[in-house]
Amino acid sequence: MSIAQHTGQAAMQPVDSYLNEVLAAIRPLPPRELRLDEAGGAVLTEDVAAAWALPPFDNSGMDGYAVLAADIAAATPERPVTLPVRGEVPAGDTRPHHLDPGTCLRIMTGAPVPSGADAVVPVEWTDGGVAHVAISRAAEPGYSIRRAGGDAVPGDVLLTAGMRVGPVQIGLLAAAGRDTVTARPSPRITVMSTGDELIEPGQPVRPGQIWESNSRMLAAAAQQAGYPARRHAAVPDDKAAVLAAIEAALADTDLLVTTGGVSMGGEHDIVKAALQDLGTVAFRKVAMQPGMPQGFGVVGPAGTPIFTLPGNPVSAYVSFQLFVRPAASALQDFGPERLAATSAELAGPVRSPSGRRSYLRAVLDSAAGTVAPVSGQSSHQLASLARANALIIVPEPVTGLPGGTTVEVLVLP
Amino acid sequence: MSIAQHTGQAAMQPVDSYLNEVLAAIRPLPPRELRLDEAGGAVLTEDVAAAWALPPFDNSGMDGYAVLAADIAAATPERPVTLPVRGEVPAGDTRPHHLDPGTCLRIMTGAPVPSGADAVVPVEWTDGGVAHVAISRAAEPGYSIRRAGGDAVPGDVLLTAGMRVGPVQIGLLAAAGRDTVTARPSPRITVMSTGDELIEPGQPVRPGQIWESNSRMLAAAAQQAGYPARRHAAVPDDKAAVLAAIEAALADTDLLVTTGGVSMGGEHDIVKAALQDLGTVAFRKVAMQPGMPQGFGVVGPAGTPIFTLPGNPVSAYVSFQLFVRPAASALQDFGPERLAATSAELAGPVRSPSGRRSYLRAVLDSAAGTVAPVSGQSSHQLASLARANALIIVPEPVTGLPGGTTVEVLVLP
Repeated sequence: MSIAQHTGQAAMQPVDSYLNEVLAAIRPLPPRELRLDEAGGAVLTEDVAAAWALPPFDNSGMDGYAVLAADIAAATPERPVTLPVRGEVPAGDTRPHHLDPGTCLRIMTGAPVPSGADAVVPVEWTDGGVAHVAISRAAEPGYSIRRAGGDAVPGDVLLTAGMRVGPVQIGLLAAAGRDTVTARPSPRITVMSTGDELIEPGQPVRPGQIWESNSRMLAAAAQQAGYPARRHAAVPDDKAAVLAAIEAALADTDLLVTTGGVSMGGEHDIVKAALQDLGTVAFRKVAMQPGMPQGFGVVGPAGTPIFTLPGNPVSAYVSFQLFVRPAASALQDFGPERLAATSAELAGPVRSPSGRRSYLRAVLDSAAGTVAPVSGQSSHQLASLARANALIIVPEPVTGLPGGTTVEVLVLP
Repeated sequence: MSIAQHTGQAAMQPVDSYLNEVLAAIRPLPPRELRLDEAGGAVLTEDVAAAWALPPFDNSGMDGYAVLAADIAAATPERPVTLPVRGEVPAGDTRPHHLDPGTCLRIMTGAPVPSGADAVVPVEWTDGGVAHVAISRAAEPGYSIRRAGGDAVPGDVLLTAGMRVGPVQIGLLAAAGRDTVTARPSPRITVMSTGDELIEPGQPVRPGQIWESNSRMLAAAAQQAGYPARRHAAVPDDKAAVLAAIEAALADTDLLVTTGGVSMGGEHDIVKAALQDLGTVAFRKVAMQPGMPQGFGVVGPAGTPIFTLPGNPVSAYVSFQLFVRPAASALQDFGPERLAATSAELAGPVRSPSGRRSYLRAVLDSAAGTVAPVSGQSSHQLASLARANALIIVPEPVTGLPGGTTVEVLVLP
């Protein structure tokens, strides 16, 4: 038995190869017709064309007076032109209005421009008169008129398939009169921790027990990434309980994440034991630190992707950012979305195990262009992760780097 | 009457001065005791110290065998040391365990280290035996043992007042046994559009009417910024209706946003007319484009901040990002949060009105370091905003810039 076999290095899979394997196995969610209030974050599977002109009719860009530009061509502050005010057109007025030459109509922002008018004089250029108005400045034809179709004409493609629906896209869909859109919804993510040692925070613990943190942390991370996410109560180390919890979650879950129960130790690795029987989830040693033991596959009638992340909180969090986030976006046939990468100068020396890619928790100072590893790099040291805003990448063959080295850094969200 | 008075320039307030006035008027929300599941995005008002050690007890970092290091000091692959296995310590085991010299105990990741043991041998260094185990590598004292207090000792400050609670902070609070924390919650934002011309998307419009888009767009923008937000149904141009809608919304709103009804035109500016009577909301002309007419103040018994944004969708959106976002974070005594700023080279010439700061919708190419204004810069042209990912800032005195100029750019979220 060689040392390589002893340490398991021979079986380790590179990080990028593992992520590619995961992404290749993802089948995008089927598109659905989504109401606007559920379309935020969805990814369009249709081009959205304007069915009507935007704006739909010529309308006023200002509060003022609709006029014939020729009638006020001579207006100056010294010699204002006075016109009779024949009425008023508020926004939302659906009655037809007509302007007779030599007169004007009061008009509000957004109100339809009367037929016969070819300019709107802002109220600031007038004395604001009600029966008659003195206009002290000329306006060119078209002034302050937003033309029908000035933003889009019917048939113009407003949004294209493959775009993610953000706030402005929601606004544009609404402005175009659409109350539904065909898109891949944001995947619903469920996170569950496993382990007999887990106790709910706020409850007393006995020696040997710890408070459960992973499911809350990862559900919050998924929400931060824009996905609807929830936690499942912690599941005991029991194969039947794990399978029952997974089956229950599948009813309204598009991506399942478990933590714990996937070490190398055998019968106590309950998640591994439970899922290995299904034959659709593969367990890997990935050449990384933190986070070596990883599992990924599909479960249930819909082929729902499942990640079985390690139970150490730092391992679970880093694995979530590196693997689960890109997979979630791939479920929408988008991205895949990864953490933003930059480079910075090491503020001090770092060490890394040979043959594994390290993701060292660190404080990035973007202004100074430096990055300093935090103290406490073990995979259970969550307090040090809470002080970090970045991960320093140390490549697989490298076992140490001196301060001053330029390194690749991932920015934590 | 001078031209300046005619065009209203004399009365315009600079953007920064207006924002400062807004921020100075914000009173942070009172802190509350929040459950973990409502603490995401909250800003701590207490230092959180560890009440117990983290980890709370010495535990195993690997699946393997708890041993006395001295017993296996001579172990090599060629001459393994064989020890009797006297039992098993799973994670979550609350029974006391003791190791007798010359023996070992099977132990799982996270399980408490038995008294008398001073190292854990990973299962990969052994033959995995059940009754006896052959260990082929020595381990130093302390190997694979996570010491009690290795992440934090009682009294260590884990999180400090003023921090925003993100996913890792939620995880750390849970790991420390906390199920509540004292913090300023994320402000609940309500957005309502006003205007008789507004029709719900999906419903037919008559000439003079348009589909309502602002409330959906801004509620989505508030959610994207991390705040709980909802839209109120569009409110007609009626003072009593506007006041009633505001009063109803105040019951569960920490920050109110209206759009429309704040132009310069007088009696049809219903929002302005309704709120001016209260005397607690000020209306300003701000020296910017888009977005000149702005209103801000407080309403209701709790002094809830209210923004009355212009009704043009691009004006409303830009105003939201420039003014409402920083104000929302100031309600948590945090930030104020602003759009990320960068600089880039103009891909083409731009124009801007004298005396107003322009925020031109643009496509930023970060890799190339260039920024190109999109076509369609009028404040009603939402389709062009949907193609933009940035805003080019053109300072107040500048009326035009040639291509190649380096400009300040705000990155849209």
